[in-house]
Amino acid sequence: MASKPIKVKARQPRGFGDRGAADLRAQDRMIAVIKGVYERYGFEPVETPMFEYTDALGKFLPDSDRPNEGVFSLQDDDEQWLSLRYDLTAPLARHVAENFNDIALPYRSYRAGYVFRNEKPGPGRFRQFMQFDADSVGSPGVSADAEMCMMMADVMEALGIARGDYVIRVNNRKVLDGVLEAIGLGGPENAERRLTVLRALDKLDKFGIAGVHELLGKGRLDESGGKGDFTKGAELETTSIERVLRLFDISGLSAEAVDAHGAGEVRLAKASEAFGDNARVAEGLDELRQISAMCQAAGYDDTRVLIDTSIVRGLEYYTGPVYEAELLFDVTNEKGQKVQFGSVGGGGRYDGLIARFRGEAVPATGFSIGVSRLMTALKNLGRLEESERTGPIVVTVMDRDRLADYQRLTTILRDGLNPKDHTGQYVGPVVPVEMFQGNPKQFGKQLQYADRRNSPLVVIQGGDEKAAGMVQVKDLIEGKRLSAEIEDNATWRASRPAQVTVPEAELLDAVKKILAAQAADGAAGAALPPADA
Amino acid sequence: MASKPIKVKARQPRGFGDRGAADLRAQDRMIAVIKGVYERYGFEPVETPMFEYTDALGKFLPDSDRPNEGVFSLQDDDEQWLSLRYDLTAPLARHVAENFNDIALPYRSYRAGYVFRNEKPGPGRFRQFMQFDADSVGSPGVSADAEMCMMMADVMEALGIARGDYVIRVNNRKVLDGVLEAIGLGGPENAERRLTVLRALDKLDKFGIAGVHELLGKGRLDESGGKGDFTKGAELETTSIERVLRLFDISGLSAEAVDAHGAGEVRLAKASEAFGDNARVAEGLDELRQISAMCQAAGYDDTRVLIDTSIVRGLEYYTGPVYEAELLFDVTNEKGQKVQFGSVGGGGRYDGLIARFRGEAVPATGFSIGVSRLMTALKNLGRLEESERTGPIVVTVMDRDRLADYQRLTTILRDGLNPKDHTGQYVGPVVPVEMFQGNPKQFGKQLQYADRRNSPLVVIQGGDEKAAGMVQVKDLIEGKRLSAEIEDNATWRASRPAQVTVPEAELLDAVKKILAAQAADGAAGAALPPADA
Repeated sequence: MASKPIKVKARQPRGFGDRGAADLRAQDRMIAVIKGVYERYGFEPVETPMFEYTDALGKFLPDSDRPNEGVFSLQDDDEQWLSLRYDLTAPLARHVAENFNDIALPYRSYRAGYVFRNEKPGPGRFRQFMQFDADSVGSPGVSADAEMCMMMADVMEALGIARGDYVIRVNNRKVLDGVLEAIGLGGPENAERRLTVLRALDKLDKFGIAGVHELLGKGRLDESGGKGDFTKGAELETTSIERVLRLFDISGLSAEAVDAHGAGEVRLAKASEAFGDNARVAEGLDELRQISAMCQAAGYDDTRVLIDTSIVRGLEYYTGPVYEAELLFDVTNEKGQKVQFGSVGGGGRYDGLIARFRGEAVPATGFSIGVSRLMTALKNLGRLEESERTGPIVVTVMDRDRLADYQRLTTILRDGLNPKDHTGQYVGPVVPVEMFQGNPKQFGKQLQYADRRNSPLVVIQGGDEKAAGMVQVKDLIEGKRLSAEIEDNATWRASRPAQVTVPEAELLDAVKKILAAQAADGAAGAALPPADA
Repeated sequence: MASKPIKVKARQPRGFGDRGAADLRAQDRMIAVIKGVYERYGFEPVETPMFEYTDALGKFLPDSDRPNEGVFSLQDDDEQWLSLRYDLTAPLARHVAENFNDIALPYRSYRAGYVFRNEKPGPGRFRQFMQFDADSVGSPGVSADAEMCMMMADVMEALGIARGDYVIRVNNRKVLDGVLEAIGLGGPENAERRLTVLRALDKLDKFGIAGVHELLGKGRLDESGGKGDFTKGAELETTSIERVLRLFDISGLSAEAVDAHGAGEVRLAKASEAFGDNARVAEGLDELRQISAMCQAAGYDDTRVLIDTSIVRGLEYYTGPVYEAELLFDVTNEKGQKVQFGSVGGGGRYDGLIARFRGEAVPATGFSIGVSRLMTALKNLGRLEESERTGPIVVTVMDRDRLADYQRLTTILRDGLNPKDHTGQYVGPVVPVEMFQGNPKQFGKQLQYADRRNSPLVVIQGGDEKAAGMVQVKDLIEGKRLSAEIEDNATWRASRPAQVTVPEAELLDAVKKILAAQAADGAAGAALPPADA
């Protein structure tokens, strides 16, 4: 036993995942659609590296109360502290500040990329995940925020999410800040406490009004999983808590009022009534009214872009409008309950983020889509399905000493089925062709392999065939159909032969003929004969 | 001065780079072409995360003599050591070992992704860069290595690199190992020294035969940059050094012999003559002969895939054939000298890598393309140029209090110029349309912005026009042509108006007409009038 080599355990780090072909192809399709929308709005790609200097990245991670919690950091060979980006906004701010004199404002850009969080992973909670952002820098007006909301709505519809199955909710950080001011939490000395309140409010979905009430007061005991973790609260007075929560209380909306004025208008009126005497709240509400008017004028009504003063986004750096894309259809959660799918992305205005570098405010607004969460949503809607892919044509290996022959047949088929134009570019769809590269000893395993790869046909040339200058082509799809017929005891229908033997020089034509017949069968939906034929 | 806010310096970490739109779009096009070749060979995408457990990743970095040198590593919140992948092969080995029972062999996969090296950056030497790999796992025969070589050749040609401008060179680690055995460096106790020799041989391009001679002997003093760094040598006897270097001495190849038998055949004969009595060398040469025969049979002659016993790839884990894609055309280097472009990728057989996890050998072979290096090569060849992109149509903002109007016009144009089919998918090319989102105070800046974005036209609506229900469209391309005519004092030619004013309801049609006229001009190459018109 002692002579056994020491083995390393093959395991991926917790919270990181490998991704297979179907997942990657679905992601490619989704990203192409989103890119198409961004491009149609005049946004252009830009990319930053995974690492930033730790000080340049800043400490803007949501849900982290200790500085640098949640960030992967290390010292490089120059003994400088580097951190892996935890979002795509902070690096964009660095990029703009670094190239400020070369960038034409307004600067409209997009980027998809992985971000990293050094957190305890959980179900659906990864330490590496993809975001897809769009940002408009040097855009001071709320028209840029309105545009972001409309662009998010367009993304949802381009992905096939029906109108009514999504809504973009819009609020304004100025409204929240004004309300906090009104209850005595204004001024820089209360910045930390304001953030605690915002984070508590952001937990409405998770803990409900009662839970948020606790978090705004003394604190909340988390009894899930028997852990009994206590989260310290914001220690607001009960009257202040109740005043703040009026922004979130939408139970008073009468159906008539909503029908007459729209849900957004009614909420604006309610907030104005409760807090309108605060100048900051009034300014924020006015901006929301403008956003609403612009969206309505462009045909994005309340069912698509909705003013909603109960939306909180927990990031410290937001300074104006904030927005969130929410999916409204039901899914079943881990506990078997029906719940609304919820948020798939959001963003807001961050006029102060680039100022960290420049010393002067640079207006900017943008949002981030959670790629894997959106993919999960689209899978739920059946929008990421692909028609079954045909696998590679497999040239099998009968005689190990004639590999060069099989290689030649493979190349003839690959080149013949994948023609190029005069510039050397492939024209037409991909037709994969491969020679069997596993251990060729057991021929049955080669056919099994072809079957697992969903091959349309295999090419076989034994010694006798070679001597006669012939080659065999086995139609695996027709073969399956025939055996299904036999198993089902179904009535015979005229079938093409599942196997042909042709002279080598006619191999390409024979394969083309079979592929064409398979395509015709597929188009006619006649892979299996009708039951009453 | 003390009241100034503390500013963070906006700088990207050394050795990391931001990437702009033209670069990213060129990369997308290049990757799509390479993917097309891999898919046509029956390879499928798979992706692993950026991080691996440090022990799972192993220590297989080329050019690193100290363990873990060159790798970014850190401890996560669970106090486990994680490392960022330094290539895409070690993570693939972990992936295959971890999912061994679910993966159908042979397993043919590809992946493009960033890898990281914690090294001193230099010109063209980044700490984050992209590789694009293809691997065949469970493929024991040299036919799989031959296939890799042919696929690399196909990649080069699909990217527009002419036959003769590239060559795939093939050697066999068994030949090198046999030669080292022959000079007394066999056995596990000499593993470290063998690696030193291989790394020295790998420096042939950089230091020439004389430099490698020093590295194989006492060592070499690097006098470039006045640094005087001394690299300790492998301490071989002079007779051994000369024997080893015979593999690399190709000066004895007579033109007649090469014409008669091909360069590969002649080199094989030479190596066989010098070292053929060593069993390992003989086995290696025999495999190279088989690879050559398979490539020739499939139409990949010596000018495309060439057996070359002077190729060394410095990775410890190679166990059989190794191969390298080399570009043969000249470029001018930093010193102003003409040099061959050189290697853009390579790989080899690594039958022992998955064995680290499994305890049994799993045959595998694959290669890696250096994406940015290949992009540089294609730029040199003018193969990554894109016809000039038309920028977004810009709807300008004249009256700040009519933003909703401008937003409506923007949406009418965007929707009208980017039609969707009945499933909600965009059909046709991207036509970007945006409302000006910068500060609208100075109208001239809006036109400047449109010009910098290469806009085809801008839409303008002042108060008078609004009152009359009209809107103005300014054709920027025709406008430029006209002013060029005036500046050049060229003869007048019939031109379309550079500006039209139409009723709002006819805006979309007017814009379509201008875009069509611009496209027709572009197609006729008549953006400027002929000199003798």
